[in-house]
Amino acid sequence: MTVHSGRHFLQIPGPTNVPDRVLRAMDMPTMDHRGPEFAEIGHAVLAAMQRVFRTKQPVIIYPSSGTGAWEAAIVNTLAPGDKVLMAETGQFAVLWHGIAEKFKLDVDFLPGDWRHGADLEQIEARLSADRHHKIKAVMIVHNETSTACVTHPLEVRNILDRVKHPALLMVDTISGLGSLEYEHDAWGIDVSVAGSQKGLMLPPGLGFNAVSEKALAVARANPAMRSYWDWQEVIAINKAGTWPYTPATNLLFGLKEAVAMLEEEGLENVFTRHKRHSAATRAAVKAWGLETQCQEQGAHSPALTAVVMPEGHDADNFRKVVLENFDMSLGTGLNKIKGKVFRIGHIGHFNDLMLMGTLAGVEMGLDLAKVPHRSGGVAAAMEVLKRRDVVSMAKSKAAVA
Amino acid sequence: MTVHSGRHFLQIPGPTNVPDRVLRAMDMPTMDHRGPEFAEIGHAVLAAMQRVFRTKQPVIIYPSSGTGAWEAAIVNTLAPGDKVLMAETGQFAVLWHGIAEKFKLDVDFLPGDWRHGADLEQIEARLSADRHHKIKAVMIVHNETSTACVTHPLEVRNILDRVKHPALLMVDTISGLGSLEYEHDAWGIDVSVAGSQKGLMLPPGLGFNAVSEKALAVARANPAMRSYWDWQEVIAINKAGTWPYTPATNLLFGLKEAVAMLEEEGLENVFTRHKRHSAATRAAVKAWGLETQCQEQGAHSPALTAVVMPEGHDADNFRKVVLENFDMSLGTGLNKIKGKVFRIGHIGHFNDLMLMGTLAGVEMGLDLAKVPHRSGGVAAAMEVLKRRDVVSMAKSKAAVA
Amino acid sequence: MTVHSGRHFLQIPGPTNVPDRVLRAMDMPTMDHRGPEFAEIGHAVLAAMQRVFRTKQPVIIYPSSGTGAWEAAIVNTLAPGDKVLMAETGQFAVLWHGIAEKFKLDVDFLPGDWRHGADLEQIEARLSADRHHKIKAVMIVHNETSTACVTHPLEVRNILDRVKHPALLMVDTISGLGSLEYEHDAWGIDVSVAGSQKGLMLPPGLGFNAVSEKALAVARANPAMRSYWDWQEVIAINKAGTWPYTPATNLLFGLKEAVAMLEEEGLENVFTRHKRHSAATRAAVKAWGLETQCQEQGAHSPALTAVVMPEGHDADNFRKVVLENFDMSLGTGLNKIKGKVFRIGHIGHFNDLMLMGTLAGVEMGLDLAKVPHRSGGVAAAMEVLKRRDVVSMAKSKAAVA
Amino acid sequence: MTVHSGRHFLQIPGPTNVPDRVLRAMDMPTMDHRGPEFAEIGHAVLAAMQRVFRTKQPVIIYPSSGTGAWEAAIVNTLAPGDKVLMAETGQFAVLWHGIAEKFKLDVDFLPGDWRHGADLEQIEARLSADRHHKIKAVMIVHNETSTACVTHPLEVRNILDRVKHPALLMVDTISGLGSLEYEHDAWGIDVSVAGSQKGLMLPPGLGFNAVSEKALAVARANPAMRSYWDWQEVIAINKAGTWPYTPATNLLFGLKEAVAMLEEEGLENVFTRHKRHSAATRAAVKAWGLETQCQEQGAHSPALTAVVMPEGHDADNFRKVVLENFDMSLGTGLNKIKGKVFRIGHIGHFNDLMLMGTLAGVEMGLDLAKVPHRSGGVAAAMEVLKRRDVVSMAKSKAAVA
Repeated sequence: MTVHSGRHFLQIPGPTNVPDRVLRAMDMPTMDHRGPEFAEIGHAVLAAMQRVFRTKQPVIIYPSSGTGAWEAAIVNTLAPGDKVLMAETGQFAVLWHGIAEKFKLDVDFLPGDWRHGADLEQIEARLSADRHHKIKAVMIVHNETSTACVTHPLEVRNILDRVKHPALLMVDTISGLGSLEYEHDAWGIDVSVAGSQKGLMLPPGLGFNAVSEKALAVARANPAMRSYWDWQEVIAINKAGTWPYTPATNLLFGLKEAVAMLEEEGLENVFTRHKRHSAATRAAVKAWGLETQCQEQGAHSPALTAVVMPEGHDADNFRKVVLENFDMSLGTGLNKIKGKVFRIGHIGHFNDLMLMGTLAGVEMGLDLAKVPHRSGGVAAAMEVLKRRDVVSMAKSKAAVA
Repeated sequence: MTVHSGRHFLQIPGPTNVPDRVLRAMDMPTMDHRGPEFAEIGHAVLAAMQRVFRTKQPVIIYPSSGTGAWEAAIVNTLAPGDKVLMAETGQFAVLWHGIAEKFKLDVDFLPGDWRHGADLEQIEARLSADRHHKIKAVMIVHNETSTACVTHPLEVRNILDRVKHPALLMVDTISGLGSLEYEHDAWGIDVSVAGSQKGLMLPPGLGFNAVSEKALAVARANPAMRSYWDWQEVIAINKAGTWPYTPATNLLFGLKEAVAMLEEEGLENVFTRHKRHSAATRAAVKAWGLETQCQEQGAHSPALTAVVMPEGHDADNFRKVVLENFDMSLGTGLNKIKGKVFRIGHIGHFNDLMLMGTLAGVEMGLDLAKVPHRSGGVAAAMEVLKRRDVVSMAKSKAAVA
Repeated sequence: MTVHSGRHFLQIPGPTNVPDRVLRAMDMPTMDHRGPEFAEIGHAVLAAMQRVFRTKQPVIIYPSSGTGAWEAAIVNTLAPGDKVLMAETGQFAVLWHGIAEKFKLDVDFLPGDWRHGADLEQIEARLSADRHHKIKAVMIVHNETSTACVTHPLEVRNILDRVKHPALLMVDTISGLGSLEYEHDAWGIDVSVAGSQKGLMLPPGLGFNAVSEKALAVARANPAMRSYWDWQEVIAINKAGTWPYTPATNLLFGLKEAVAMLEEEGLENVFTRHKRHSAATRAAVKAWGLETQCQEQGAHSPALTAVVMPEGHDADNFRKVVLENFDMSLGTGLNKIKGKVFRIGHIGHFNDLMLMGTLAGVEMGLDLAKVPHRSGGVAAAMEVLKRRDVVSMAKSKAAVA
Repeated sequence: MTVHSGRHFLQIPGPTNVPDRVLRAMDMPTMDHRGPEFAEIGHAVLAAMQRVFRTKQPVIIYPSSGTGAWEAAIVNTLAPGDKVLMAETGQFAVLWHGIAEKFKLDVDFLPGDWRHGADLEQIEARLSADRHHKIKAVMIVHNETSTACVTHPLEVRNILDRVKHPALLMVDTISGLGSLEYEHDAWGIDVSVAGSQKGLMLPPGLGFNAVSEKALAVARANPAMRSYWDWQEVIAINKAGTWPYTPATNLLFGLKEAVAMLEEEGLENVFTRHKRHSAATRAAVKAWGLETQCQEQGAHSPALTAVVMPEGHDADNFRKVVLENFDMSLGTGLNKIKGKVFRIGHIGHFNDLMLMGTLAGVEMGLDLAKVPHRSGGVAAAMEVLKRRDVVSMAKSKAAVA
């Protein structure tokens, strides 16, 4: 058994730190999922998720991981042989691409160096060239959790509009939703994919799809086999505040509370907070003389920072030193950047002093693991956090209706 | 908001009453699903589920509802056009049949009257007639939650052996596992399907498949498209105590505690307890002059009892009277027995006095709803519960390693 | 370790069943007891307790058992040698009397048979005879938890007024508050004594005094030594929403939630509910052919029922049989009625079906312990509970501000 | 309502951060305080507290604040007019002195400057001069929480032995127990006073006395009035694992878990951890160019650090800036050092990164509040924490019986 003196620092980019209020809301007796008391909760969480996705359209909530919600996006709208356009922004794009291949889509996977967002010029080029509209969907990862690079969905929407391409725009915002701005309707997203264990501050176990009218129409006409992930039946039965199967009641109790917390803080304030923490973290990385994995100015993720290890030093050894000495979990490098990158999550239920503890753990860990670096990262982060223009109130008062 | 004075009586046949110990185990900070502390838990729950299923083979745990685990059983082992044999024991057989059809299986669905277990003679007849072994799987519901009738999987196994048929034996034991005897290996089951929210005493959100070597071999050869539900990758990565996606960490914390509780009580004692409560409930039903939906001697479910309303009286109106007057949720009649049947769950974390409260609520509710019946059901149940031969200790002492 | 299958039935008359909402409210990080966030809670619970006691005067909340609040009542208002009038209504009167003697009060302890409330005629006689007003306080137990007999404080107030006696009226309502009507101001009570673990539905650990202006004036002039229990300093510092020492923060979190629950249900409804359950329990006792300990018509406690065992049968043996067979705790007989009486608590967070489980456990236990009785108690209780005029809604809708 | 984004930093020197495991242990149904299941817990916590106090003698556990345990020490062993020797080490010595005066003791209160431990020379001088042994007790504060200065009880014991004085040695270790070494028996302490909300990692609500045989004998002969605090009856009834009143059951559930955690970590490791954090904090204070309130080398508290504000700057204004900007509670200066000192708690359930977050909050707060200081405190603390000789494992493996 692991003995923790004080709280573990869970600074992977998900699952994130779950607020006590959310854990306590889940720690309640389960209930009749077909009774009137549950129906109130069902309606409440469906409406809450519409507000978080910024959509008037249905949101489908699955008892699943985020990978399930990826699959749901595919099997509802696409059939084997359908052509789609994806961009290799990093490991999560690779994984979604893998699912697409399992369902026998014909994927045009735009290569990337894992240090930038999606290559918008290439996307525009491919879509422009697709005169016959063979491409049925463009599938983009909003906040690429393996590289900490953001691709802005609105820019992809603008391309589609510009070249007048009817492809569906499908966006994985698993680690984006609740951490950075997201506008399902205003940005013209057709299918959004999200999960519970990131900016939504819940334990893992729920996957989400937000859908457009157009996506729903495509789905209705789609002959591909599906059952669990099928949107239609869920949407129909959701009208009664319930689900066609036994939903994950206690995670839904938590979801209700989590969205309440986000709204008490104010989503805009939540996004600002994430940006401050990202800026402070990058200031630390720069002071250490290290590089961020993301090399695209303006595309740095507010939710996490991926840091490149100096040549000849293993990121996972460093992470082990940090875990053993400071009881902090950092994110590993994934796939082709394994051992080369570690990731600092600053997403979800988080604040300035948690970040400072986090960065101090990284700085001390670099030293203990004998990774070449300059000191001063922690000090640089403090400079950012205490700047008047970026100091947001750590606490705010909120009225509850 | 609903105000509860005292505890709600959740007497639907699932989700069942979750023990405080389990809720509290879930009410813990989530953790790095790729770290060493989680790996210990991962290994522990996988081993625990093998003990509960009574198998040495892998158990696959999904973040899903039970319907997901149904789908998983199908998509791993069967391909469109495959012929399978199912038996219409009730609504859950109907629903599983519906999924089979969505995946374009060729289902031979043996009709049933919803008042008996599966028709074993018909199963034997069909299998015997299937000289060319076109039937790839026999799919049976162990504890049919809509009718409270049990089909014993071992009898189906015996038929398969007797007629030397190689079809896979797939068993839905969603509401059976943890409530009544189940032997995945000893009974020669190829795929078992279960869920968290019944005898396992957890909130909903986890689905399970236990598999045989034969089923695994079939799956490896199966060309059907699948990703989320695919067994191979999960089993491979489970060897490290983790999952190919972010697992539902906190439900897994609860699962560990729930199996610990079942094992402290002793699974045999758990099964005996369910049988006592079932016997007491049927004694009450008989005393009221009502009929159980299940009409097959020896097939009455230990986990729940379905009761037929007298002609002209609506079961859902009765359930509403009980809910409003006594804050107790009873199970509704499903599909073609809607309004005609109500169901009393006596499954999971339950004891004699909770049962007596339940039956008193039913008896008083029958009166308030003006349903014709004799009084004396509660008294009859007490006669059963206090009989020396069936009195098990309500409490027992257990040593914890 | 004790293994519980299902919930333990905690039917002692305190500690009572704590609602999940209250336990969860306590299960929160403690906080700076001198900070602004705590001050809001401090003000809220002080105001809440005024509403529960029905007083505009200060309520003092101690981290203590109820015995501490007894002592507080004494040491604030009385000095060694002071004469007081008490009535031996049962064991709790005896215990309070014992504390009074330890503080060297001159106690006139009116004898009683432990089967009635206080002897009001004797009280009136003593007060009338006390021309020189030597008696400084009349100290009464409102709901005598050892006998289940109530003494109505208003009747004592009326006597004091009738004979124009200036003695303080001090009332122990430890097991009364939150279970039966109580009006600190309207009934002219000078010092009320209460505890957290009864009708207030909290775990044990808080004691309460409500005080009148007159009691405060007496206290200011009282030379008796005291520190922890001294009202003055607490009241002064309470004005800032905090306490002169570190208060029991988490029990106060629970108190806030518990009063919220009582007020959502409505205190009047709470009292009605307790009376129904008391009536149903007495109907059961009568049907069993047993006697209640309380023999005074109109004085039966709504909060608990004390039952006399037939001659030659040991109540504690019976309680042991019930505990071992049905995992239910019943209250023991105290002091001179030990072994002769057992007590059924129906106080706090409780409802009809919990009561029916409780009474079924008693009825089956009587049988298993071979205690002579008639069957039919459970049936008789159901007759009471299902009577239209006494059926209150088990659930109600409440608006939350 | 206060909205917290991320966890509040509760860095007052008590109440301290309560571990989730402890909160969850308290979040369990209360139980019959006279039943066998509770008796096991009662025996367990009494034995656990003997291990923590390092005594074979009884430990008395009160539902009370620490001030109650102070009073208990006095009223059990001393009577009005008794002479005692106390030392004004800071505000908590002043408060205990105040209680002693309320109970009319004749206190010789050795003056102090609040920047050192007790004046041992003066103590020796007074005891030597007391030829007739009028002094009945020497009363010392072990870890003076207002100044962060420690007085070592063993040195006082050595004085008593050296001058062969029979006075009782009474020690307040409210904020010492569980944070720094304490040996009730080996150090010859007669009465130890402690509370739950400091090193014991519980919410407030429990007070403790550990007693020597000699103290018990004195108490038996002591005529002073007392009831709630009386040791004898509690000790007698504790033999059955219960208490003479309803004990604070749920806080006791938490106490059992808290001591289990301390023992899993190992008390020696716990003490070492506190010393590391104290050393790191003092390094930060020195680097900031500020002074610690405690000026006695070797007497710095491992549990907290009190920091003197530069002349002309208000400590409470600084604390307010920190609370509002960084959601961290720091301890206020008490009594005569109000506004001049702030206190940093590093006591209880705590670790390196929580400390770094804390110190970063102080450093940034000094800047925002425009308090003159040098930067570099955070960096200096990291130097201490990462030194190989002081790096203890943040995590350790422990076997549980």
